[in-house]
Amino acid sequence: MPRVPIQILQDEYYRVLLPTGLPPERAALVAQRLAENQRDGIYSHGLQRFPAFYASIAANGIDVRATPEKVGGLGAIEQWDGRMGLGVWNAHFGMGRAIELARSHGLGCVALRNTNHWMRAGSYALQATEAGCIGICWTNTIPLLPPWGSAEVRIGNNPLAMALPPAEAPMLLDMAMSQYANGKLEVYRNRGEALPIAGGYDADGMLTRDPAAILAARRAVPMGYWKGSALAVMLDTLAALLSGGLASHQIAGQGTERRVSQVFIAIDGRPLADAGAWSATVKAIVHDLQQAAPLVEGDPVRYPGERMRQTREESLRSGVVVDEKQWAALLAM
Amino acid sequence: MPRVPIQILQDEYYRVLLPTGLPPERAALVAQRLAENQRDGIYSHGLQRFPAFYASIAANGIDVRATPEKVGGLGAIEQWDGRMGLGVWNAHFGMGRAIELARSHGLGCVALRNTNHWMRAGSYALQATEAGCIGICWTNTIPLLPPWGSAEVRIGNNPLAMALPPAEAPMLLDMAMSQYANGKLEVYRNRGEALPIAGGYDADGMLTRDPAAILAARRAVPMGYWKGSALAVMLDTLAALLSGGLASHQIAGQGTERRVSQVFIAIDGRPLADAGAWSATVKAIVHDLQQAAPLVEGDPVRYPGERMRQTREESLRSGVVVDEKQWAALLAM
Repeated sequence: MPRVPIQILQDEYYRVLLPTGLPPERAALVAQRLAENQRDGIYSHGLQRFPAFYASIAANGIDVRATPEKVGGLGAIEQWDGRMGLGVWNAHFGMGRAIELARSHGLGCVALRNTNHWMRAGSYALQATEAGCIGICWTNTIPLLPPWGSAEVRIGNNPLAMALPPAEAPMLLDMAMSQYANGKLEVYRNRGEALPIAGGYDADGMLTRDPAAILAARRAVPMGYWKGSALAVMLDTLAALLSGGLASHQIAGQGTERRVSQVFIAIDGRPLADAGAWSATVKAIVHDLQQAAPLVEGDPVRYPGERMRQTREESLRSGVVVDEKQWAALLAM
Repeated sequence: MPRVPIQILQDEYYRVLLPTGLPPERAALVAQRLAENQRDGIYSHGLQRFPAFYASIAANGIDVRATPEKVGGLGAIEQWDGRMGLGVWNAHFGMGRAIELARSHGLGCVALRNTNHWMRAGSYALQATEAGCIGICWTNTIPLLPPWGSAEVRIGNNPLAMALPPAEAPMLLDMAMSQYANGKLEVYRNRGEALPIAGGYDADGMLTRDPAAILAARRAVPMGYWKGSALAVMLDTLAALLSGGLASHQIAGQGTERRVSQVFIAIDGRPLADAGAWSATVKAIVHDLQQAAPLVEGDPVRYPGERMRQTREESLRSGVVVDEKQWAALLAM
């Protein structure tokens, strides 16, 4: 697949986003985040999704000029209303405010309601690492998964991200609640392969390794089965309580995914340790992991975020991988 | 199985704990927490584990009179040294302090190092709900699981708990990182049944549904496979960074599980919403979950913590279920 310099990709996003009415500094930020997703190998949230993302701005009635408004809170935790603004911008604002709170209070938490799809969860956890902070964030979604004990879609896929500094080599967990992302199920289906482990239910409500049956039934299974199901419910409930916003079942009531609820947490390490001590702790943990004998020779255990870092470095050296059709589609927009 | 009133069980724990040198108010608290585990149906962390818990006090060199000492922090987040005190007491102290911080800062976080096994993670999340707060806490452990990509035990089973008020009917997630607890694997093995899903590796490093093979190899699989593996690494790293204490691989270096690292977070809801609004939000989420068509007739979808609540209510009505031999063993101590 072709590669293009990240700046070219970012400029193209900016060109397309500006006529939506997004103020220039916002269009620049959104363009940067989208380009970074492609740079980091998160292809599902880059060019592949951009046409749908772009269309949702108008279709969902997003107010591209809206600025979040503070509605409550105390000290280290604040509640903000996203006022139906653009999700990527609002989430950037939310983590930015959490970082400010962390500077004064050691830890900062912003709960944001009435906001929209933030694209990639990891973006905002990584944003905290750029400020030398630990970042944790999650969002609820429209219902996409069956809770444990049912094959009926009722719970959100509620992505959760956590990242640790340093920003150049972050440890990053960025996971939705389903065992397999839809994109991954499609890859297996297109190859005609069974999943390594059960990934969802078929139309009869039976657990299956058949990706086509799961996609047809739209019933992916939560990661860890009963555990991921419970975690999804907790994250949705926490997001709704802290933000005063909608829970997944209420988002469903709107028909399309809009006015979601999100939580952003930043922790400033400086009152706890010097940066050298943190870095040494992380390095020792990574080193120990890498000593584990791999199950497949030549395929060592990776720390969370390691593959992203490798992809990112390659992208910065040689350009960002783009699908030819997707790239042409952006150029034509 | 016989049932005994919870107060009788608690009194027996107290009688046995007092001669360890635990100050009376601490012995009373630990006795209460252990009795509550049995009351809530967490039999793995009640009478069944008590002899090992009791023995560990002397064997691990625990200082039953130690009081945690504040060593750092800023505003909403504090770092404490548990000074090798009793884990249950130290953890109670840690969440108690997080609740105090939440009263002043909206949210409070205590990271505790050099502490010991806290028995049941859920105890401390529930402690926050007794103060009207949301509680989140986790601990690292000695390595008990293979990371994804290896069959070698290298990562902790790092229990994570989250609970929401009200205390009488909390929503509670209390989960370790393995797909199945060891106790659960033993139940299947003793019944001669295969697991419903792969639960670990056999001696050859192959994923298997055979509980006996997994127990023999001591290689349970993380929940959600790669996802639980990554979450376990993140929780361990966060606990070590925030507390300045040991990570799982360093705990392993000591030979037995001691001097673990823990994190306690409390969020006071009052600056965010009135209690009625929170309660209505939670009720609506639970109600929606209960509408999901069950896969097995008569076995409806449960919210996280629902089964515990049912067990607790039955225990308070009819007495706490005890295994006859385990109960006799406590009486004989």
